[in-house]
Amino acid sequence: MKDRIKTVTIIGLGVIGGSYAMALKKLGYTVYGADCDEETVKKAIERGIADDAATTADGFVPISDLVVIALYPKLVEGELARIAPLLKEGAILTDVAGIKSHFTEKIESLLPEGTDFVFAHPMAGREKKGIDYADDSVFKGANFIITPSPKNRKESLDEIERLAREMGFRNVMRLTPEEHDRVIAFVSQLPHAIAVALVNSDDRKFDTPRFVGDSYRDLTRIANINEKLWSELFLGNKQNLLSSIKEFEKCLDVIKTALENDDKETLEGEFVRATKRRTEFNKEL
Amino acid sequence: MKDRIKTVTIIGLGVIGGSYAMALKKLGYTVYGADCDEETVKKAIERGIADDAATTADGFVPISDLVVIALYPKLVEGELARIAPLLKEGAILTDVAGIKSHFTEKIESLLPEGTDFVFAHPMAGREKKGIDYADDSVFKGANFIITPSPKNRKESLDEIERLAREMGFRNVMRLTPEEHDRVIAFVSQLPHAIAVALVNSDDRKFDTPRFVGDSYRDLTRIANINEKLWSELFLGNKQNLLSSIKEFEKCLDVIKTALENDDKETLEGEFVRATKRRTEFNKEL
Repeated sequence: MKDRIKTVTIIGLGVIGGSYAMALKKLGYTVYGADCDEETVKKAIERGIADDAATTADGFVPISDLVVIALYPKLVEGELARIAPLLKEGAILTDVAGIKSHFTEKIESLLPEGTDFVFAHPMAGREKKGIDYADDSVFKGANFIITPSPKNRKESLDEIERLAREMGFRNVMRLTPEEHDRVIAFVSQLPHAIAVALVNSDDRKFDTPRFVGDSYRDLTRIANINEKLWSELFLGNKQNLLSSIKEFEKCLDVIKTALENDDKETLEGEFVRATKRRTEFNKEL
Repeated sequence: MKDRIKTVTIIGLGVIGGSYAMALKKLGYTVYGADCDEETVKKAIERGIADDAATTADGFVPISDLVVIALYPKLVEGELARIAPLLKEGAILTDVAGIKSHFTEKIESLLPEGTDFVFAHPMAGREKKGIDYADDSVFKGANFIITPSPKNRKESLDEIERLAREMGFRNVMRLTPEEHDRVIAFVSQLPHAIAVALVNSDDRKFDTPRFVGDSYRDLTRIANINEKLWSELFLGNKQNLLSSIKEFEKCLDVIKTALENDDKETLEGEFVRATKRRTEFNKEL
């Protein structure tokens, strides 16, 4: 099994694609990279991030056992349609997209017989974009979600799971695309929406940075956000994210109403509940 | 000037009082500690956090140049009334309370002639409470706000500022009590309200801790909160905090409405604005 995948093509050498390349190359795989940006291709070669790289994957795909499409979700389909005729027989494909539900069916219809697409979401990233910020150390101890489709071969799923663990991911989980999108709306998209709203709600009557402590700094770190990618992720998971925002607002309203009514008991109750949950949470990690 | 304060009594040896004691003792001051909890007094002596400690400050106050009242805001007035007759002539007092506006006048009316109370807020803390979590390293590079009163002597303000810098605080700022409470509502209390609401809004249909990345972890760290202290701080600054929550909700509504309307342009605009602000912010720190 270990011998099955030897050669990998990574399409899109941004933060995540670049980090995949670094991780897989260190593990001994032959890694080819493709990126539409010439500067990125040059860097990937010069820095030894990939064994070879080009502005198109066409030369690499026919000799690759695995193709990782590390593009923005909307670009995956078009790229797959382009490379489909070039895929090696029995090749496995995978993606890194942060949304899954409205995505899988169309893609599977494009696959040539004998190939297999394993949908995956490596839950590791950076605020910054581009190959300059690629760093495979972000995978260490991180979570990795696979959303199996009925068409997937068990061996392909196991291969991608094994690869994720080799790259350093700790928890590798399997969810349905719908479960994935619900969980992600709460643990990732909602925090990003909150951080953005918090930074934007500053009336700037004071020089905020001079007054902040760790709390504000921690809560706003992810307000530094790639606007093209995240607006796509938000809109691609709109119903789930709206539900999560509404549930969050309900809980914030409990605090607001308690304040308005000088209701110390309710406030303390909310704080105790949050503390209890957050402490359990620390134990599990 | 450096010679003016030699002996300090700290009343309340919790996280902040205990950390003050540690910092001042290392700096060569004679430090006495008082705490109503016998176990805390024992630990303070055994661990050398204070030169001496007792369950009452009565024996220390008459020989102290500085008295730090590191109690919950509501307890400051009562404690001051008790120790006022014991204060050394010319003594300086200070506090560590996270709210200031509804606080200063009453306290100043209790002060004996010749003493001076400098209101201060060291912006450093811990999620945990009690002397076991006292650690003066949290002061390094942190912010310190003084809210001068018209009654303060310039020399007393300068003394407390010098002391704060000696203990490791980097920015020492002077604000009116009203400015302090407005800034704190936004940079500290609002983030705590958000973190609590976020954790409490989890519907727990999934095992959340298994799916979180850094974003959720960062945003909820401060949901581990001392309910007695923070409900007091929230209610003591209720109008400012309510305003901050409402401004935040407006900005979150912009995101919500953009989602509902599939309005990618507005979403991107909000993300760009947040990123720009958060990046400037990094430069300043």
